[in-house]
Amino acid sequence: MNADKIPDIIVGRLPIYLRALQRMAIQGMKTTSSQELGDSVGISAAQIRKDISQFGEFGKQGTGYSIPFLTGKLREILKVDRTWDVAIVGLGDMGHALARYGRFGERGFRVALLFDSDPAKIGQKVGDFVIEDVAQLVERVRACRIQLAMVAVPAAGAQDVADKLVQAGVRAILNYAPTAISVPESVYVQHIDPAAHLQRMTFYLD
Amino acid sequence: MNADKIPDIIVGRLPIYLRALQRMAIQGMKTTSSQELGDSVGISAAQIRKDISQFGEFGKQGTGYSIPFLTGKLREILKVDRTWDVAIVGLGDMGHALARYGRFGERGFRVALLFDSDPAKIGQKVGDFVIEDVAQLVERVRACRIQLAMVAVPAAGAQDVADKLVQAGVRAILNYAPTAISVPESVYVQHIDPAAHLQRMTFYLD
Repeated sequence: MNADKIPDIIVGRLPIYLRALQRMAIQGMKTTSSQELGDSVGISAAQIRKDISQFGEFGKQGTGYSIPFLTGKLREILKVDRTWDVAIVGLGDMGHALARYGRFGERGFRVALLFDSDPAKIGQKVGDFVIEDVAQLVERVRACRIQLAMVAVPAAGAQDVADKLVQAGVRAILNYAPTAISVPESVYVQHIDPAAHLQRMTFYLD
Repeated sequence: MNADKIPDIIVGRLPIYLRALQRMAIQGMKTTSSQELGDSVGISAAQIRKDISQFGEFGKQGTGYSIPFLTGKLREILKVDRTWDVAIVGLGDMGHALARYGRFGERGFRVALLFDSDPAKIGQKVGDFVIEDVAQLVERVRACRIQLAMVAVPAAGAQDVADKLVQAGVRAILNYAPTAISVPESVYVQHIDPAAHLQRMTFYLD
């Protein structure tokens, strides 16, 4: 397998399959079919077989997929067979919601650093972690070798935060700020923009 | 143009183009090229030309795209040349962040109804709107003929809320709850799942 050759749109579906498989495992299921998996995530069985076959032969004709085996393979492919530390910048409503999101641990992530620029917030605890001064961001993120960050600051501060994160060595940013950010090509950004997500859906309405 | 024929992946890119065009307009720009638009959103010029040409001939060889014209066309295609009322269910950190998101108006949306089940929250105001009892959801959403909702309740309550929204006539749901929800095929759901978004990015890291 060559990661460069796999279309990002397929990569984007793997976490959805993994989430569904983990849910099936919790329900006590041991095997599933592309049909059943597809029904549970709203993607066709043929698409699922095609997506998964990009990475190897993980299912058997007739018996389908072993849930523990396919879960293990997907975790390995997505590199969440380890735990990634994540920094959150901006502890407003959105940052708090992200910091308190209870499902990161089982999905391969740990919120490890929190930053804000508001003196009233710096030093406060959210869960087990203390909010640090964003002025220390570059130094602290670099020292902890953190590669992933979630940005939840107001629009005006987002680019400056992104620049600092890139400078500190961050390679992937989930951007919840209500504005686009520019980063070097080597850094992967996903912009979580509720208005854009809604617009994708209104296309289908009338 | 036949909406059924346009792949959803293309539909999903149109809001990104629209957002970039609106940003260019704010900067005082009048025209742009697929190259320039592509650079600003990290998508190839060829892909942008191909996506946009699905809907008609909106650019001119050599002169590129008129920003006001293309903006108008995209708003029409995405049906955000009008204002859609949106309901938010669950006014925890995430719901508050969504309710206070300042960019809905310019993007075609208005947060019109807020619901929570917590007696301490019901009756409280967020911005101009009062949080209503989720027990009234079906009746109120139906009366206001709302078709779009954002769900930001805890995992345990998400399916019940989704069922109520569907019953009330909602046709598109942005699901911020930390769990998948099942809806009839006619209802469009997007699951905003920070762990899944992070997993899409760790694929590329090492």
